[in-house]
Amino acid sequence: MQRIYTTETGAHVGERVRLSGWLHALRRMGGINFLVLRDVRGTMQVVVDTAQALAGLEGLLPETVLAVEGLVAAEPQAPGGIEIHAPVFEVLSPVSDALPFPLNKPEVKAGLPVFLDHATIGLRHPAKRALFRLSAGVMAGFRATLNGFGFTEIQTPKLVASATESGANVFGVDYFGQRAYLAQSPQFYKQIMVGVFERVFEVGPVFRAEPHDTIRHINEYVSLDFEMGFIRDHRDVMAMLTAVIRGILGHLESAYAPELGLLRVTLPSAPPEFPMIYFPDAQQLILDRWGEDCRGEPDLAPQHERWLGAWAKEQYGSDFLFVVGYPMPKRPFYTHPNPADPRYSNSFDLLFRGTELVTGGQRLHLYQDYLDAAAARGYTDLTPFATYFEAFQHGMPPHGGCAIGLERFMMQLLGLDNIRLATLFPRDLNRLAP
Amino acid sequence: MQRIYTTETGAHVGERVRLSGWLHALRRMGGINFLVLRDVRGTMQVVVDTAQALAGLEGLLPETVLAVEGLVAAEPQAPGGIEIHAPVFEVLSPVSDALPFPLNKPEVKAGLPVFLDHATIGLRHPAKRALFRLSAGVMAGFRATLNGFGFTEIQTPKLVASATESGANVFGVDYFGQRAYLAQSPQFYKQIMVGVFERVFEVGPVFRAEPHDTIRHINEYVSLDFEMGFIRDHRDVMAMLTAVIRGILGHLESAYAPELGLLRVTLPSAPPEFPMIYFPDAQQLILDRWGEDCRGEPDLAPQHERWLGAWAKEQYGSDFLFVVGYPMPKRPFYTHPNPADPRYSNSFDLLFRGTELVTGGQRLHLYQDYLDAAAARGYTDLTPFATYFEAFQHGMPPHGGCAIGLERFMMQLLGLDNIRLATLFPRDLNRLAP
Repeated sequence: MQRIYTTETGAHVGERVRLSGWLHALRRMGGINFLVLRDVRGTMQVVVDTAQALAGLEGLLPETVLAVEGLVAAEPQAPGGIEIHAPVFEVLSPVSDALPFPLNKPEVKAGLPVFLDHATIGLRHPAKRALFRLSAGVMAGFRATLNGFGFTEIQTPKLVASATESGANVFGVDYFGQRAYLAQSPQFYKQIMVGVFERVFEVGPVFRAEPHDTIRHINEYVSLDFEMGFIRDHRDVMAMLTAVIRGILGHLESAYAPELGLLRVTLPSAPPEFPMIYFPDAQQLILDRWGEDCRGEPDLAPQHERWLGAWAKEQYGSDFLFVVGYPMPKRPFYTHPNPADPRYSNSFDLLFRGTELVTGGQRLHLYQDYLDAAAARGYTDLTPFATYFEAFQHGMPPHGGCAIGLERFMMQLLGLDNIRLATLFPRDLNRLAP
Repeated sequence: MQRIYTTETGAHVGERVRLSGWLHALRRMGGINFLVLRDVRGTMQVVVDTAQALAGLEGLLPETVLAVEGLVAAEPQAPGGIEIHAPVFEVLSPVSDALPFPLNKPEVKAGLPVFLDHATIGLRHPAKRALFRLSAGVMAGFRATLNGFGFTEIQTPKLVASATESGANVFGVDYFGQRAYLAQSPQFYKQIMVGVFERVFEVGPVFRAEPHDTIRHINEYVSLDFEMGFIRDHRDVMAMLTAVIRGILGHLESAYAPELGLLRVTLPSAPPEFPMIYFPDAQQLILDRWGEDCRGEPDLAPQHERWLGAWAKEQYGSDFLFVVGYPMPKRPFYTHPNPADPRYSNSFDLLFRGTELVTGGQRLHLYQDYLDAAAARGYTDLTPFATYFEAFQHGMPPHGGCAIGLERFMMQLLGLDNIRLATLFPRDLNRLAP
């Protein structure tokens, strides 16, 4: 008999069906035994009321893999109004070890280190599973939106000969006796590829050797990058990013209702135009409203971002806020200055519920500007930049782009208190496994 | 004025439009100058017949980035029947360096090393660009097909604590004073995730420290992986793979006609059921038809694969052939044996035009089988497998999967004579840049 999913049983009332999945729970209620079978889509209650059927379940532990053939019956008191009667069980994979923590409670009752140590099992919990289904949805929404705007997907090397943006915080690799590094971002490659496809995106791993042990940092994460040519300036990138965020949220809303419901997610408010504030105005606002004078500082602190996020929500009803025009010194050397005031850049951060989610902006596009910017930063050896700069020697259009951290997005979307909870198998200072 | 693409001009005959792109070529024919402007979608001929317009182009080198405003005119003798008259040019990015090789010839005239050294520029050639558009199409077709079959996308770590499948051929990474490795494949993680999502796929980089300098090997490539649970055996994986290959080819055919036309690609014949041959029968066939006795050997040589590919084409009209039931000793330890004859495995290779494209099969799913398999291979220290094996301790369904090498697929699809030509920025024994 062909297997059907638990969620499909409703269409088969009165018929015998075959279900497959994991022994999620076994409960005795009022003299009757109920087995709850879990498959990828949901759970189904199976009534075990004969001695023979019960004998077949004797000694089975949670997570035993089973096939069940039985009769689909409507039963108002059953979860979802459906249950399986007269079951015949087949054990596909027996289990003889107890779980490190139960998977059949509404929440996983395990501290973070214990959960992460056993993530290979813990991720089976329906709430965890739903979270990473949404991650897949974010990637799909990102790609679908950009494909719709004529972007081309690229896959660029993660093994590189020199550090992408600075010499610090890169992982070194032994490469056939040479020294190689893991790419901190696809920045240089996505810019180069604007010369080929005009508009490109990449979804892939990036590696940061930052020795930070915080709730917001992991050392390998998934970066959702895009880069686009023939722009006026950073405002075209911001408009595209707005469309991308709205595209992702729209995709989640339309295709992931069960997961959003299970996790009780309130989708953020993302108006057609996200509010924006200039960097110096943001500092002035922080002084005026919260009495903290950070004027003249080159960046915002996390508390400043939280204040600004709250302000955007209150003032504009938006969970997103662009902060535009960061001072040049704290931005990477390829950042395009504001032509009207070169102390500031044509760059932006996007705050999502008061936390930086995206950094982006317009890039330099003229070869001479790259030479000047490198000189101004004191880069004396340009050899590591030779192949990158070659793209600009041969004509690059005005362009810009940005990158969204997938796990950061999920953390803010779900209100998680640690980015590790948004990462399948996180890598940090102390964790390389599972 | 809003920019339009070169391919959109046909809808604007008699109107003034704005185009943007690169100076692809500048030609003098019969006293008239023609500028060819290239954008991401195509090229457009611009007639430069006034002294003033010509003066504006004085000294401009190929790849100069330009905007052109002009009148769209129907002209039967022009390429595509359309050209631009009365142009006004704006130089967006001037160029002062000569190209390493011309980009405006029908083919790139550069040896492979020179081309790869200057790939940042060479990839702009329309034929190269078309090739990597098709790569993007292959990824999109892969994902779309599997999403349609209820698979969930995952992103698993590339930094791992131990080698995935064997201790050899891994790149070592300095990880905060610990030793880490780059993942050779997502094999263990995708199996673990079958316990979560039943059906998963991943598109991402894999790293092989194989010191081979051949036309078929690169050291970082893009792997298209899928893995599925609740299968009968390897035949369910083969059926899914067939659907995936046909899904990819269908996507290319429907969405990439310009690229297929430019590259003169003949899409392969991929019947609804790919022909298959058992491994020992393949060896017998090789003896009977080509007189070479390779019976008893544990694997096929490239020449054997070419013969079998030719046979499948002749016999079944198929460019794809499954070879099924490889001997166990040459397959990884997690391979499921054939229950009827445990010397052979429930695994397969898929040959595409006589070259191995995919390796896959059914995996072990019982914990005890993993312990036995590890012992049989002489693995005395199981610590590196602890978190992997934990998934099997807690109930894993029968499952299997496979992996397609993106660049290998492109190489066979386009009949390229070196896999580096199917890789944006290849990594090999001698190449870490660009």
